Formats: sequence, structure tokens, C-alpha cells
Amino acid sequence: MTGLSGAGKSTIAEAVSGQLRADGIPVEVLDGDIVRQNLSKGLGYSKQDRDENVRRVGFVANLLSRHGVVVLVALVSPYREARDEVRSLSGAFLEVFVNAPVAECQRRDPKGLYGQARDGKLLNFTGVSDPYEVPQAPDVECHTDRESREESAGKVIDAIYAAIGRSPIAEQAGHR
Amino acid sequence: MTGLSGAGKSTIAEAVSGQLRADGIPVEVLDGDIVRQNLSKGLGYSKQDRDENVRRVGFVANLLSRHGVVVLVALVSPYREARDEVRSLSGAFLEVFVNAPVAECQRRDPKGLYGQARDGKLLNFTGVSDPYEVPQAPDVECHTDRESREESAGKVIDAIYAAIGRSPIAEQAGHR
Repeated sequence: MTGLSGAGKSTIAEAVSGQLRADGIPVEVLDGDIVRQNLSKGLGYSKQDRDENVRRVGFVANLLSRHGVVVLVALVSPYREARDEVRSLSGAFLEVFVNAPVAECQRRDPKGLYGQARDGKLLNFTGVSDPYEVPQAPDVECHTDRESREESAGKVIDAIYAAIGRSPIAEQAGHR
Repeated sequence: MTGLSGAGKSTIAEAVSGQLRADGIPVEVLDGDIVRQNLSKGLGYSKQDRDENVRRVGFVANLLSRHGVVVLVALVSPYREARDEVRSLSGAFLEVFVNAPVAECQRRDPKGLYGQARDGKLLNFTGVSDPYEVPQAPDVECHTDRESREESAGKVIDAIYAAIGRSPIAEQAGHR
């Protein structure tokens, strides 16, 4: 899941992982903050460091994925090339563009980061002082400014089930 | 698996992983070189960086482990405290001391690193210019200077099967 800070990546990842877990699917969420703490301490927010961060998380997601774990990666991941590199290395990869206008993200500002960026206390802040390269052909696009959390999560869940060749348990139960 | 460079950690990890795979057990090897390339680019060999490296690999091993994957970590991991920290964070952890005298490791020198360390081209080299804190109560100890590769691997395999509460497939087949 790629998108601006505050676009709703983590919120959707939590909703999706909750549903998958309830359906008995092995799942892990690799969220930006957890990743920065446990895998990428020392990396900053330059293009080079962001790319290394994305690559590193891709490596870990791949390790899990090849043992049948669905890995939900919630990272700003602003650069197209790094996203495409991870896609090319992955057996199964879905790019989910969590799309909300920057004005809406600034209004939400759940971590107070846009405020800090505006005040010049945070440099290299995506959408303010750093670029965000919009995905050109995402597998899923969520518009969190006009969809409910459940609608957005539902799109991602459908795409995952299509990719792993399995219908949602709830649907199976309903139809048979 | 902890031990000096050249002690035989990777060799044993390969033998163990081959056997587990043949027995149908999900397994991953996280080897020092792979880890440095994919998870820890930018970290050096100071105590602080080595500790961060061990912690990071522990985090990844844990992610895999909680999905039923046996993870064989082959890292020099010279500091007791970092090893104990990873142990305390892990649901299931076996410390394997791959023990060979430093003179024997220097003689083998499979990567030419002892030569470089002796010539002053490599600093912070464990066993030469950096300490190795011997495990005080390892779960398994392999003496690779006087055991065959198969003997050492066998000890590790037995310990893993005991830990996961399963007998080796070969043994099951033999006895029933």
C-alpha cells in the first residue's frame, strides 16, 4: 500500500488483516513505523534511503510470502522505480494506491507530521517538500476521501483473494 | 548459530536445511552475507552495529517463526547480551555454538578474511582484533574440528525436532 502520510494505509491494512485472520489466512502487517524501528534504524528520508527501506521490506515480505503468508506493507513508498523493483522481485505482488488529496491528508494529520513539515521541523516530507510519484497502473486504488474504511478494505480483500485463488470464507459459506 | 568466521556455521545450516526440507518442514536460512546485503547495508562491525544487526535478524526470524517456519540464522553474533536479547524476544530459540579453535578457522580461512585481518586490511575482525564471547550454556555445541559435517548437523536437527515436538520423518518411518 503506497500513498501519502495520513492517506489511510495503516487503517486499511488493519481492517484487511483483521478480515484475513478471521478467515484463517496467515497474514503479517509491515507498517512504516514498525519497519523503521526494527529493520531500518539509521536510514533517513533521502531518495536513496527510502529506496533502500522499500527494498529491505520487500526482501522480508518475500521471505514470508514464499511460506504462504499474505504480507500487507503500509509504506509511503513515493518512488515508482523502487516499487517496480520490488514488484519484479516478488512472486505475487499487488500495488494498492491509497489515494487521498494532500489537502485532506494535511487536514487529518494523525501524527502531527504535516504541521511539523510546514513549520520546517521535518525535511524531505512527502507531499510537502518531497515528491510523490503517483502509481500509473495500481492493482487497486482506494479513494479514502470518499470511501468508507470498509469499502476500501473490501477492494483490497477481493484483490488478495483473487490473487491467491480463493473466495472469501464468508462468501463460500453464503453460497453453498 | 554463533561462532567465529570459518567455524562452519553456513555449512551446518545448509546441511540442516537440506534435511528439514526433505522432511517437509518449512525452513529458511538467514546467512550473514545475505543478511548484510539485504537487511543491513550500511551497518558496520562496531559492537553497536553488530548488535543492531543481530536484533534486526532476530526480528525477521521471529516473523517467520510465528508462521511455523524454522529459521536457521548463521551469524558470528559475538556478543552474549545481543544473543540473550534475541532469545528473550523469541518464542522458540536454540543457541547453537559452532565451535572451532581460532587457529583452525585461520587455517581454513574460506573467504580470505583472516588473511586480510592479519594484514590490517580488515578492522574489528572477531577472533583477531575483536572479542568473541563464548556461549555459557548453548543448547547445542558443535565441535567442527573433530566432528563430521553430518555429526554436527545431526545434533542440530535432533534439537530442532525436540523443540518442535516432532520426530524426524526417517525415524518415524523406521519405527512404525
